[in-house]
Amino acid sequence: MSEANKPITACLIIIGNEILSGRTIDANLPHVAKVLGQVGIRLAEARVVADDEAAIIDAVNTCRARHTYVFTTGGIGPTHDDITAACVAKAFGRPFGRNPEAERRLLAFYPPERVNEARMSMADMPEGVELIDNPVSVAPGFRIENVYVLAGVPKIMQAMLDLVLPKLEGGIRIQARAATVYAPEGDVALGLRAIQERFSQLEIGSYPFFRPAGPGSTIVFRGTDAKAIDQAVEALHALAAKLGAAIKDADAG
Amino acid sequence: MSEANKPITACLIIIGNEILSGRTIDANLPHVAKVLGQVGIRLAEARVVADDEAAIIDAVNTCRARHTYVFTTGGIGPTHDDITAACVAKAFGRPFGRNPEAERRLLAFYPPERVNEARMSMADMPEGVELIDNPVSVAPGFRIENVYVLAGVPKIMQAMLDLVLPKLEGGIRIQARAATVYAPEGDVALGLRAIQERFSQLEIGSYPFFRPAGPGSTIVFRGTDAKAIDQAVEALHALAAKLGAAIKDADAG
Repeated sequence: MSEANKPITACLIIIGNEILSGRTIDANLPHVAKVLGQVGIRLAEARVVADDEAAIIDAVNTCRARHTYVFTTGGIGPTHDDITAACVAKAFGRPFGRNPEAERRLLAFYPPERVNEARMSMADMPEGVELIDNPVSVAPGFRIENVYVLAGVPKIMQAMLDLVLPKLEGGIRIQARAATVYAPEGDVALGLRAIQERFSQLEIGSYPFFRPAGPGSTIVFRGTDAKAIDQAVEALHALAAKLGAAIKDADAG
Repeated sequence: MSEANKPITACLIIIGNEILSGRTIDANLPHVAKVLGQVGIRLAEARVVADDEAAIIDAVNTCRARHTYVFTTGGIGPTHDDITAACVAKAFGRPFGRNPEAERRLLAFYPPERVNEARMSMADMPEGVELIDNPVSVAPGFRIENVYVLAGVPKIMQAMLDLVLPKLEGGIRIQARAATVYAPEGDVALGLRAIQERFSQLEIGSYPFFRPAGPGSTIVFRGTDAKAIDQAVEALHALAAKLGAAIKDADAG
C-alpha cells in the first residue's frame, strides 16, 4: 500500500440538521472508522455540521488542509436542503453547474415522466470532479482533490465507500487487542500508566463500565507493532494478577 | 427564559479515540441535542476529537468563541488517557492543579485503602472553575466560562447535564412536526422547495428512505412559529394529494 510509518489521516464531515437535532442517529461514523482503519487510514477527526453554507465551507476548507482525506456524508439529494455540492464548489472556488456525465446517468435511469428539475439538480457539481458511482440509486457522489462527497443514506454511503477504498493510499494496518479487567478503573490506572510509559508506541485506552455485577474497565491496545501489543496485554494480565482481579479477552472492534 | 429571538447555540465536543476508531458508538450527541432543544438551545455543531492535546485545545478555543455554550464529554477519568481537564486549562491559559473541593469530595467518597494518585488526579482542574456535581460516581465535572466539562459515560453525563440545565439561558423553544410522504423524494422536491420559500422562517428537512414497500420521505418542519409549522404541514398535505401520494404524521423526534 504505502511507505512505512507515513501518517495517513482522514476527517469525516457529517452534514445534516437531523443529526444535530437528535432526530437521526448517525450510523456512518463507526462504519467509516472501521473500514478506513482496515486499510491503515486513521480517522483522526469528525465533525457534524448543519445544513448551513458558511458552516460547511469552513469545515471543508479547515479539514482538507489538515488531513490526507476528507469524506462528507449527506446533503446530495434532490431537495432544497441538499446544499453540499454547491458549498464544496464554493470551498474550492470552482464554478458549479451541471455535470454532463452525471446528467447522462440520471437521464438513462429515470423514465422520462420522472425526470424533473429537482432530480436533475443531483447532477450539479463543482467543475472538474471525478464521479463516484452509486450502485444503489444512481445519483453519483464525487471526488474533488482530497475531498470525497458521499451520500448520507448508510447503504448508499457504504457502497460508495467500497468503490472509493481501493483508490486510497493506505498506511500500515493498525492492529488492536483488548482485555477487560474486573476491577474499578481507579485501581488499574496507576499500573496502566506504567504500561503506557513502557509501550509508548501504542495507544492504550481505558473504557470503564458500571454493571450490576460490579465495575470494570476494558483496556484497548492499538498500534502498528503487533509484538508490542502482545507484550502490553501480557503486562496487563500481570497487573490484574497483582490486583487479584479477573481478566478476560475482549472485542477490540 | 430569555429575550425573544436571541440565537442561542451550543457545540458538543466528544473527546475520545474509542469513538474515532469505531469501537464505541457515541450515545451522548442525540441526548444532548434533545435536552438542549427542549429549552430552546440549538446544538449547532458537534466535533469528535482524539485524545490529543493540540486537537482538544484547538476545538475548545474555536468553539467557545463561536457558540453560547460548549459541552465536552469524555476524558475526565483517572487513567493516563484522561487529558481533557489539563487541555481545557491550557486552552484558557489558566494554571492547572488540585481543586480543594473536588479533592474533599473524593476523599469523603473513597475508603482510605482505595485512595490513590490516579483517583485523586480526577480533582485536578483549571483554576477558578465551578464544579458540576456527579451524583453517580462523585468525581465532579466543571464549568469554566461558557465551557462545561462533563463525563463521557452516558448515565453520568446525563445526570451532570440535568444539573447544569436549569442554569443555562434558554431561547425560544423550538417546535417540530413531521409527516411522511409515500412517494420518491424526487417527486416531492419541487413542491417542497415552494413550501420552504413560502415559510422561510422554518427549517424544513427531507429525509428519504427506501423500504421494500417503496420509497418515501419524512419531512420535518422546525422553528419557533407554531402557526407557520401547522400551515406548512397543511401545504404538504395538499402537495401529497396533488401527487396522489399517501401521507401520514410522523415522529418529529
